[in-house]
Amino acid sequence: MQSDAVVLLGGGNIDILPTCFRPGAAVIHCEPTLESGIAELIVITVKIILSSMVCCKIMEKMYSIQHFSVLKLNLYISDIEISRAQIPKPVNQLAEEVGLLPEELEAYGRSKAKVCLSLLDRLHTQPDGKYVLVAGITPTPLGEGKSTVTIGLVQALSAHLSLNSFACLRQPSQGPTFGVKGGAAGGGYAQVIPMEEFNLHLTGDIHAITAANNLVAAAIDARMLHEATQSDKALFNRLVPSVNGVRKFSPIQFSRLQRLGIDKTNPASLTPEEVTSFVRLDLDPSKITWQRVVDTNDRFLRKITVGQANTEKGQIRETGFDIAVASEIMAILALADSLEDMKNRLARMVVGTSRSGQPVTTEDLGVSGALTVLMKDAIKPTLMQTLEGTPVFVHAGPFANIAHGNSSVLADKLALKLVGRDGFVVTEAGFGADIGMEKFFNIKCRASGLRPNVVVLVATIRALKMHGGGPNRHKPKDIPSLYLNLSLVAAGCHSNLKKQIQIAHLFGIPVVVALNVFKTDTQAEIDLVCEIAKGCGASDAVPCNHWAQGGRGSIKLAQAVNEAASRPSNFQFLYNIEMPIADKIRTIAQKVYGADDIELSPAAKDKIDYYNQQGYGLLPICMAKTHLSLSHMPDKKGAPTGFVLPIRDVRASIGAGFIYPLVGTMSTMPGLPTRPCFYDIDLDPVTGEITGLF
Amino acid sequence: MQSDAVVLLGGGNIDILPTCFRPGAAVIHCEPTLESGIAELIVITVKIILSSMVCCKIMEKMYSIQHFSVLKLNLYISDIEISRAQIPKPVNQLAEEVGLLPEELEAYGRSKAKVCLSLLDRLHTQPDGKYVLVAGITPTPLGEGKSTVTIGLVQALSAHLSLNSFACLRQPSQGPTFGVKGGAAGGGYAQVIPMEEFNLHLTGDIHAITAANNLVAAAIDARMLHEATQSDKALFNRLVPSVNGVRKFSPIQFSRLQRLGIDKTNPASLTPEEVTSFVRLDLDPSKITWQRVVDTNDRFLRKITVGQANTEKGQIRETGFDIAVASEIMAILALADSLEDMKNRLARMVVGTSRSGQPVTTEDLGVSGALTVLMKDAIKPTLMQTLEGTPVFVHAGPFANIAHGNSSVLADKLALKLVGRDGFVVTEAGFGADIGMEKFFNIKCRASGLRPNVVVLVATIRALKMHGGGPNRHKPKDIPSLYLNLSLVAAGCHSNLKKQIQIAHLFGIPVVVALNVFKTDTQAEIDLVCEIAKGCGASDAVPCNHWAQGGRGSIKLAQAVNEAASRPSNFQFLYNIEMPIADKIRTIAQKVYGADDIELSPAAKDKIDYYNQQGYGLLPICMAKTHLSLSHMPDKKGAPTGFVLPIRDVRASIGAGFIYPLVGTMSTMPGLPTRPCFYDIDLDPVTGEITGLF
Repeated sequence: MQSDAVVLLGGGNIDILPTCFRPGAAVIHCEPTLESGIAELIVITVKIILSSMVCCKIMEKMYSIQHFSVLKLNLYISDIEISRAQIPKPVNQLAEEVGLLPEELEAYGRSKAKVCLSLLDRLHTQPDGKYVLVAGITPTPLGEGKSTVTIGLVQALSAHLSLNSFACLRQPSQGPTFGVKGGAAGGGYAQVIPMEEFNLHLTGDIHAITAANNLVAAAIDARMLHEATQSDKALFNRLVPSVNGVRKFSPIQFSRLQRLGIDKTNPASLTPEEVTSFVRLDLDPSKITWQRVVDTNDRFLRKITVGQANTEKGQIRETGFDIAVASEIMAILALADSLEDMKNRLARMVVGTSRSGQPVTTEDLGVSGALTVLMKDAIKPTLMQTLEGTPVFVHAGPFANIAHGNSSVLADKLALKLVGRDGFVVTEAGFGADIGMEKFFNIKCRASGLRPNVVVLVATIRALKMHGGGPNRHKPKDIPSLYLNLSLVAAGCHSNLKKQIQIAHLFGIPVVVALNVFKTDTQAEIDLVCEIAKGCGASDAVPCNHWAQGGRGSIKLAQAVNEAASRPSNFQFLYNIEMPIADKIRTIAQKVYGADDIELSPAAKDKIDYYNQQGYGLLPICMAKTHLSLSHMPDKKGAPTGFVLPIRDVRASIGAGFIYPLVGTMSTMPGLPTRPCFYDIDLDPVTGEITGLF
Repeated sequence: MQSDAVVLLGGGNIDILPTCFRPGAAVIHCEPTLESGIAELIVITVKIILSSMVCCKIMEKMYSIQHFSVLKLNLYISDIEISRAQIPKPVNQLAEEVGLLPEELEAYGRSKAKVCLSLLDRLHTQPDGKYVLVAGITPTPLGEGKSTVTIGLVQALSAHLSLNSFACLRQPSQGPTFGVKGGAAGGGYAQVIPMEEFNLHLTGDIHAITAANNLVAAAIDARMLHEATQSDKALFNRLVPSVNGVRKFSPIQFSRLQRLGIDKTNPASLTPEEVTSFVRLDLDPSKITWQRVVDTNDRFLRKITVGQANTEKGQIRETGFDIAVASEIMAILALADSLEDMKNRLARMVVGTSRSGQPVTTEDLGVSGALTVLMKDAIKPTLMQTLEGTPVFVHAGPFANIAHGNSSVLADKLALKLVGRDGFVVTEAGFGADIGMEKFFNIKCRASGLRPNVVVLVATIRALKMHGGGPNRHKPKDIPSLYLNLSLVAAGCHSNLKKQIQIAHLFGIPVVVALNVFKTDTQAEIDLVCEIAKGCGASDAVPCNHWAQGGRGSIKLAQAVNEAASRPSNFQFLYNIEMPIADKIRTIAQKVYGADDIELSPAAKDKIDYYNQQGYGLLPICMAKTHLSLSHMPDKKGAPTGFVLPIRDVRASIGAGFIYPLVGTMSTMPGLPTRPCFYDIDLDPVTGEITGLF
């Protein structure tokens, strides 16, 4: 653990090059001709001595993780105990190691920090690293471990192959954390630490989204009430108040005037008709699409009636709450590529339709500036680390169903600059490759302009057995992973795994299959999966033991990914954005899901006509389909064929920028079971230790 | 601006004494016999050279605030422009100056940080400083400036009289910030900076409260659904699941068993009756007192019907949302004096009543451990600074109506240790002294054990004129502060001001009247108020010009407070906690409000009987009364007499620890006006500057 400290004379700044990957290496530019320069030089020199001492201590701890021989068998140890046993590097040190300047960092406590977007400007000439997407085969209800594979892969790349890497993960919703699923920081020896921080409030992004989303909702209902109870004149006098005898439009009101085709600047010059059209959004209560959100599994809020107090004068209506991560604002956070882009998207969001059929936006409500203010910090990705001290960005976490289920464009972009040309950014897409990966390519990559190099497709023996005809049970104890059944495994590989590989190839990207190994899997099963996967066109297929061994257990995967990334890829979108909406939907249904055709309901047809008429026809498609089957039928495992995909309805997220067809009924608010996870979650007030948050 | 750097040999730690108040002074203990000690010594020495240079620069800026002669007239400058023109000290530097160790600080960005409670242990032998409460006369709807007086006072004490001081403020709700009132960071040259940070998410405490509050709500409704649709056996099997063939109670379930008088540890040994009483909370839907919350002015959520989706199987019920700061969890945060105390209070919260009349707690729901986990960071106060760089704690902000309206016990306790024996902690109570101050003494001081030294009573000429018989209008332009009317002023002083001084004297605390001066006030008016106030028993009465001049404008107030604090005080509670509930209410009504008597409704009488029966009779009283009059009638200004106070209903916050009688109807959810503040709130995506958040 030696430091390569090189002191260059001249220049006034301290430039520590990324040293996360080669701990201790630093190049320092100093100006020794000034008094302050000399003082700085002394400080820096001493700091290097001290910090390399600290670094050595920490790296000893970090490297000790790679020797798991003793802990490997100790399977009673919980994820949180593993997490707690590791001491994270101070986030300032981590940031310095990955090449961030102190002014680009906003620490939130000791182990997480927001990273400023100005970094993109500073590094704009830096070439991007390799871009790796982790997707999965069609999962069992338990999930097949994409997050742990992602974390294990970067631990292997950085801590074992000395290749710069960054993992980009989604921020988990508190709903599942306290509900059924529990925490989402990975598991075993492939975790983000500290997992409590990851699983709880993090740096407040989801809370900011909740606040912004619900401000819009409050603005909608209050506006309808005020319009229902006031004359045009009263509304106008209040909306454009006289301040010291002068009435002025605010900037946000000019935007509305523009959309109305009114190019006047003097409020007094508006005709009565113009006043009416300006002050009355005239929202149709039955056509409000905006829902309130909470980041809690609160099923009783799925359908509610609001406005029942006397003070609301009988303006009651039915509406509902979604889980916060299903908010369009979350999808926007994930797709925005700058503060300005986010601001514009927040202003474009359509909350409903006027009685005359015009879309009404958040800008019409006058609230979009405030939304941007509420979201100003949320747009900065959060830096954390894996159990082996390698860097992670946690940012955004849109619902993988009515939204696109991928982490943020900005985190990926920042990470691609930080790792440099030969480095790797590993990002993850929700659900199976037919959903998360398809949306990653067609929506996220279209928005970002980024082009992926490799797809890692995660599979498990238990899920392959299910696809091969084995039982599809919902409880861990019922998953028949304890018996050897090579024929079920082979059938699963030849159906679902093969189809998901082919889907990735539709986009021109090489696929590495990562078999997430469970302790009950046999060598024969493992060998069989890898053999068939390669036969189906995967560049490589390797078993992964990150859960039990951390990065060391994923070295083969890291090598395979490195090899595949060196191959040429020919990325292409699945559909041209200019295609008619129905054709885009049909293309996804046929080429990705394997459907014969689609069937649009009358409601869906009407909506498509309406969106075309409003100029939304050029948006990409975000399918809302079950993740439990390639088809719309959750029970059809493997690779179903011979079905027609029914499109029940079509909706649009104009700010996020996609049309989302509904295939069946999608719940956007989970529920709590009889015994939710929170029963076991507790905190010892003396030690501060948290239990039950696994 | 010289540094007094004293280097002591021996000892390994760096002990920087509080230097906020004497910038640059530091005592350093070093161990020069070890290599690391020498290195450390060099670093520290160089750091002192550098930091005193930085410090000088910053202090020049800070001190420049005291010369307002030019800016004073520039009244077009908005609060946010004043805030933006000042560069806050880095919070790490501020923390070091006030005597915090680096490990006691958790920075949240560059200008705010959470402070660890371990500080209380480290400083437990340190004597407390002087404890000053800022209260007010009965206000106009615009408020009379308690926050600016508080901030101006600490700016004067620390930056101008070189007396250590800390301001302890409440975190503002986002509801008013985006609704009617706007930001709450003070105003003019008496502000907390950066005001955007203060007014937006701060360090996420209110979001944590919202998450915790709504997890309880989700748990209540989900539990009722599961109890309604499952047999005792099914419930038991799910609540106490068999894991690897073994059923075990979780710790939180043992607590419930204890309350039920069941001392068994083996789940299999419970009788069928015991199983029934264990699994069935049997909540009466009509007696659920727990409401959901959002931190938004969303009037349409005041009264709603939930559970209308088919999935909830007809279990609909009426309920509502409160603004987040009205959550009992906020009141608990403000009153808890340790993590353990908070945890116990969170477990004691009563959410409703069973059909057999038993209170049902969050611990019965199994959720109280998770609540503590959600609130683990919120319990740490947030360190910020005033415009003149003096320290501020921002922590908690319970509704001043159904809750007690004071900032946190813990922030006050930490600050009292940090300022030392001769220093000052200035804390603020919401609304008029009859409400905020009465609750400060009888509830907060009872919980904390702290004893105040001085009350600062804030008055304005405009409010005094109103109390003297002038018009009571709700709009700034209608407040007749532009005309000289000494008789109205005198009448206001002899009624409301006199009565509020007398109320403070009931508790044995000396009063300094702070007249918050507006530019339209005349010298004759100012002199008259000060003269009458002293005649009514105030220790002193002084005009304050902090809005226009910062701390320099509050030097007289600071001197008066310093003088009053040196006098002996004889603090006493207004009532003995053992008194019957009705007598405690009557005591407050008669002695504080000036009522002849109280009149309890039948509902109120029933509730008092129920609370006595449940053992809640020993709790203090938190009156929910209008803040616009000493009486229950908002239009009765001055010091009304000859009225009977009607008690409509009585409720209880068992976790927070008070009974709250309802005097009239209290709205716990504000609404949005036709043109909310958010219309003007915007962010420039290029500069990042925020507008409209004043």
